[in-house]
Parts: sequence; C-alpha cells; structure tokens
Amino acid sequence: MSEDPSKAVRIGLLGRGTVGAAFAELVEARADAVEAATSRRPEISGVLTREQGDFASILEGSDLVVELMGGTEPARDYVLEALRAGRPVVTANKQLLAQYGEELFDAAREAGVQLRFEAAVAGVIPIVRVIQESFGVTDIAKVFGIVNGTTNFILTEMAASGASYEDALSRAKELGYAEADPTEDVNGADAAAKMAILARLAFHTPVTLDCVSYEGIERIEPEDLAYARELGLSLKLLGVAERRERGVSVRVFPCFLYGGHPLAPVEGPFNAVMVEAPAITEVTMSGPGAGGVQTASAVLGDVVSILCGEAPVHDTRETLPIVADVASSFYLHLEVADRPGVLARIATVLGDKGVSVKSVVQRGTGDEARLVMVVHECLESLFEEALEAIDGLDVLRAPPRAIRVIEEEFV
Amino acid sequence: MSEDPSKAVRIGLLGRGTVGAAFAELVEARADAVEAATSRRPEISGVLTREQGDFASILEGSDLVVELMGGTEPARDYVLEALRAGRPVVTANKQLLAQYGEELFDAAREAGVQLRFEAAVAGVIPIVRVIQESFGVTDIAKVFGIVNGTTNFILTEMAASGASYEDALSRAKELGYAEADPTEDVNGADAAAKMAILARLAFHTPVTLDCVSYEGIERIEPEDLAYARELGLSLKLLGVAERRERGVSVRVFPCFLYGGHPLAPVEGPFNAVMVEAPAITEVTMSGPGAGGVQTASAVLGDVVSILCGEAPVHDTRETLPIVADVASSFYLHLEVADRPGVLARIATVLGDKGVSVKSVVQRGTGDEARLVMVVHECLESLFEEALEAIDGLDVLRAPPRAIRVIEEEFV
Repeated sequence: MSEDPSKAVRIGLLGRGTVGAAFAELVEARADAVEAATSRRPEISGVLTREQGDFASILEGSDLVVELMGGTEPARDYVLEALRAGRPVVTANKQLLAQYGEELFDAAREAGVQLRFEAAVAGVIPIVRVIQESFGVTDIAKVFGIVNGTTNFILTEMAASGASYEDALSRAKELGYAEADPTEDVNGADAAAKMAILARLAFHTPVTLDCVSYEGIERIEPEDLAYARELGLSLKLLGVAERRERGVSVRVFPCFLYGGHPLAPVEGPFNAVMVEAPAITEVTMSGPGAGGVQTASAVLGDVVSILCGEAPVHDTRETLPIVADVASSFYLHLEVADRPGVLARIATVLGDKGVSVKSVVQRGTGDEARLVMVVHECLESLFEEALEAIDGLDVLRAPPRAIRVIEEEFV
Repeated sequence: MSEDPSKAVRIGLLGRGTVGAAFAELVEARADAVEAATSRRPEISGVLTREQGDFASILEGSDLVVELMGGTEPARDYVLEALRAGRPVVTANKQLLAQYGEELFDAAREAGVQLRFEAAVAGVIPIVRVIQESFGVTDIAKVFGIVNGTTNFILTEMAASGASYEDALSRAKELGYAEADPTEDVNGADAAAKMAILARLAFHTPVTLDCVSYEGIERIEPEDLAYARELGLSLKLLGVAERRERGVSVRVFPCFLYGGHPLAPVEGPFNAVMVEAPAITEVTMSGPGAGGVQTASAVLGDVVSILCGEAPVHDTRETLPIVADVASSFYLHLEVADRPGVLARIATVLGDKGVSVKSVVQRGTGDEARLVMVVHECLESLFEEALEAIDGLDVLRAPPRAIRVIEEEFV
C-alpha cells in the first residue's frame, strides 16, 4: 500500500450485491470523513462482478481489496492472491473465514498486511474488534449469543403470534429477513460459521466450521413457544463458545432463556453477543445483525482501521482440543399414554442415567396427555442415552422433544 | 518508546488505589498473554503514590505511562509531561479528559504518541474504542446511556424495595457501590464528564464539562418510582449527547423509559451505552460500570493497543455550537387542592405555552390529591415557563415535580 498520504486509497471491490452496492455508496458519502480521520481519500478503483471486471487488473490498480462476493470459491483464491501481493483485505465472508481462516491468517502474517472481517459476524455489532483488541489479552471464558437474525425473527414471530414455523418463515421471506433458500440460516450452519470465527479469536486456537456442532430451529413447534411464554421463558437460537477444562466447546442450538437473561429481550432480526471473563464479568453488545448499509458500515470501519495502523496479530497461542460432550439443562416434552405408572417409568430411566428432574407438569388428558419436564444440568451424552431409552418405552405416543435451557440468574 | 521487540515494556504507574493495585496484579497475571499478542513483555517499572516515588525518575525509567491517580492536579501536569517526553499514556481519569481533553490531545498529536482512555467511560464496556474506531467515520446522530453505576444502583434499589433515596444511598455505600462522598455521582457531575468525552469523540468537535447541563437523582421520591412501576416504566439517570440541527446537545437527567426500551432492563451497578446513526441503526453495549479488576482490564486493553500500533487521531473536524434548548417529553407530578376547576387552570397554563397533554390521572383525594400527567414533546424552555406559572397558582400544595420521559418505541 502506498505510504504517500497525499494519495487516494484505491479500493478494489470484489462483488456488487446488496452489501457491495451499499459499500460503494457509503465510500462516496463518507469520503470526507475518512480523509479527515486518516488523511487518505478512499475511492473505488475497480469492481469485479460475474459480468464485468478482471481480477488481475483490479488487483494491480488497488491499494486495498474489499471482498463482498460471498462463497468460498473463487473468493478464497482472490483473497489469498491479494494478501500475497501485499494488499490489505477486508472481507465479510463468514464461510471463507470459518473454513479457511488459518490459511488466510497465515498469508496475511507472511505478507505483513492486515486482514479484517468485522462484517462477517453479527453485522454492525463490533464484536470482532472488541474480542481482538479490547479483550485481546483477557482470559475469556465464554462468548455466546444470537448471531443469526433470520432465525431470531422467526422465533420472535412464532412466540408473538403463535404462528407455525412454516408461516413464520414465509413472513421472514416477505420482509426480506430470509433468503429464497434459507437452509443455512434455519439449520444453524450460518451461526456455526460465525461461532467458529469468534471462538478462534476468543481462545487463540484454530477452530474451523467442522469443530462446531449445530442444530437449527426447523423442528420447533408452536406448542414449545406456548409453554415458554407461560413459564416466562424465551426461545433463542444460541451460539455458544466456551472453555471447558483443557479444551473448548463450540455449539449452536435452540435454547430457552429465563426472563432476566440479558439476551431474552433481543427480538426480531437483531443480534446480540455476550463475552464473559473473570476480569470483565460480562459485556453484552446488540444491534442489527444484517442489512446492506449496516454491513457496509462495518466494512468501512475496517478500511479505516487499516488506514490507521497495525492490527493485533491473529496469534495462535495454543492448540486446544474440541470438547464435544458438555453439561446442559433440558426441557423435555413427552406425549404420553394417560395411565398410572407412566411418570414412574420415565423417572426411573432418567434416574438410572443420573439425570435429575427439576420440575414436571402433566398437561391434558387422554390423547392429549403430555409431560413437560425440566431436568438439571447433566452431561449431554447421558441425557441422549436417557432420551433414547425413553423413546424405546411403550408409553410414548410420539418421539420425545428436548430443548436446552439456561437457568442461571444474572445480575 | 523503544522499538526493540525483545525488550520489556516498562510501565510507569501513577497511583495505586483500587484500580492501580488491580492493574499491577493484572499486568503480572497476563504478562504471557500480552507477550504472545505483542511480542513485548509488560512490567511495572515504577509506582508513584502520595507516599512514595518520584515522578521524574519514574518517567525516565518508563516506556509508557499509566495514570490512575485521579483528580486534575497534578495528574494534568504529569500526563502532559509524559506525552511531551514521547511516552504514550493510558488514563482512566474522566475529569481530566472532560476538562483538559483538547490540551492533552494536542500534546499527544504534537509528540506523535498515543493517549488512550477506555477506562474513563463506562468501565469495561469498550465504548471509547467502538466510537473512535468502529464508528470513527460514521455519521453518529446520538450517543446515550447509563454511565454512572452508583445512581443506577440507587434507582434500581428504590424501584425494587420502595426505599427512600437516603436509604438506597446508604445501601450503596455498604455494598461499595457509592463512595464516602457520593456528591459527584448523585448530582450527575460524574456522568456529565463522561458524556463530554463521548460527545467529543462522536461528533469530532471540542466538548468540555462546562458544555454539559446536568441534573442528579437527589430529589427523586419513592412515589415517582411507584408510579413508574405501575405504568411499566423504569427510571434511569441518562446521559444524552446528540446532534441537533447545526449543533450538539449534551445533557444528563433522570428519565422514565418505556418497558421495551433497550436500556430499561439495565439494573444495579451496570452501565449501558447506545449509539445511533443512519448507517448502523443502533448498537447497544452493556456491562459492569466500575470495579477494580474490570477497570484495570480496560486499562490493560489500552496498553495492548498502544503496543500494537497507531490509533486514529482525535481529529476536530468542525467546531459545533452547543444547543441548550431541546425538546423533551415530561412526566409531571402535582400535589393539588382537591376541588373542581383545578385541572382546568393547570391545563390552561400548559395550553398557553403550547405544551400538549398526553395523559392525566388524578390520584388520592383531599390532602392526598395529586395529578400525574405526561406531556408530549415540547421545547424545554417552554415547559420550564409553564412549570413556573403552575408553581405560581394557588392550587398547589407543594412545588411541582417534573421528570423527562422517553416514549419512542424500539424494535
């Protein structure tokens, strides 16, 4: 990158979808402010789309590359090539980082240039910067939150109106909160990629998408939300990355939160992320999780940071094992035969696996009979075994449904 | 500062109170992590307290100075001297920055060294970095929030238990959330200093403490909180910095918030700050507002940032006038004579000043008769005039009490 402060910063833009177009507009609108802050005036020097532009010549004519094309190929090749050519890169591409982060960080380190990606996680919420810079030497215990706006909108809609999953999804599509093919959002894969990135930054250890176990919200029933409302709970799709003994655990799952939880009031397409550490207690950040101009705004923030100086290195301090089996508390919904002794048989199975029941309520009678239980925290593997054993009993009218619960009380 | 990466970073520490002692401990505990992130190992090379140490020799033996002594003198001289001697400085001293910020920023700019102060505002919440770096070129419209933990604790206590202001303050002192002399916390001066700093960063214009109009919580009555609870409102001491036409307005005042407001659930000694801008919608950050290790953690984050490179300049892009008279909505509490025609006389006074009534309820009878009103947004100067005129009526048994209300609905 040229060091002549009198020169413009030539930005090579890869991709001009919603975010790319918003970014190009924002660069023009905020050029004065960027120049005031950095003494460099930004300009888009070339744009690569499927229809136009040639990567090699855009790279040649740029001081800095912004990748907003999405997908892993050819984005990966372009970003690597740009870094190796000494260009700092800003990207919003979560899948690219979650799958090839180490390779990209290595390339950036070798070339001595910055790779920034605030917009890849939680939209305009500056969680990447805060974890990397503010809490870069903090002993982070846990990073968790709501990092997918589509699913949070759907769950909010289901809770508010009693809508079915399918109807809420249709509504999300109508309002532009879900894409035509929402698979990666609703099955948790999008959130998993984001959590892989956050875990990597928080724990300074390589974490890729395939380290993350995830579940989506496709099987959530309006009934689950109805019980939640009655009990003062809200249901969120949570991403959780935490240190566990000598390893880390990174997971995405639907989860009931108690009313006083800081994430409980986060509704609609908003995202929110919490960071916990002994030295900071907890910090919560929330804001819009997506949107063209919001995401473009995060990209521009990264461009300014690059113009202002050096970023902390993406240092790997240790390589930690991924812990798959952790302890959780569960809500358990069982459609049962309405006859004496059913609860005793189920409680026996749970007890045999060391799963302890916190509360149990019977709802309905006859063909509508249900047991709704909450069990105390236990190793998920034991709970899974108990669930399988319960599923094998002849007292169930449908497969058991289980959803995790967070029941800690917060300040 | 020495550029030899093999060398330790020698930190001269000014002040060893609660935060200073916690910082010294944290430097030792996290030295490995700092070295991993920055290739420099931090060590405390000298400590200045009232009883020990000599500033000149501590400065001489340091690469970087951390000022945690508080107060404006001699802190101001020491920080200026350190900057002029080419030492980057980290300070948590809000009064120093709110009163002498421009002088300090100028000194840092001239010497070409960094001055960082994350811990001066909202404890461990990284609001300074986020405004300066993530949103450094964003067209921020408004920064507001709860930036004083002592008063938020007191208001939370009053709301939860019906305690009087005095009793809640005693409880805050017992728990260490209020100092022996809590004047600057409860009268709003502490929050005003923090808002001056945030306004300066958000709007790139000089803002000092004397630009901020502030009110405290000393005159809040349990009755006000009781009404709030009934109406689903919560009462917070808010700091608000916003662009108004061609100027900026920076104020601190107690304010009722509707239940759905993102700041409503922030309780106890926690702080929270919201940033609003067209390009980002809104971002909310919350966390502990104080605490030795939490504040020390923010200071260490600044030290790491200094070791990692250059900060954005504290650029003044324009000098904006301070707008004193802005529009607000109010809750109005009147102890009135219980006879016909009283409401008509009060409504006439309000109407004459162009103040429009949103709701009015009479409570109690005889000597307990009260009118509780909420008025729509109007210029504060007009409301003040109306309030004075009402105070002059012979139908009041006590001076009128008014508290601002934020009634916007949020996402």
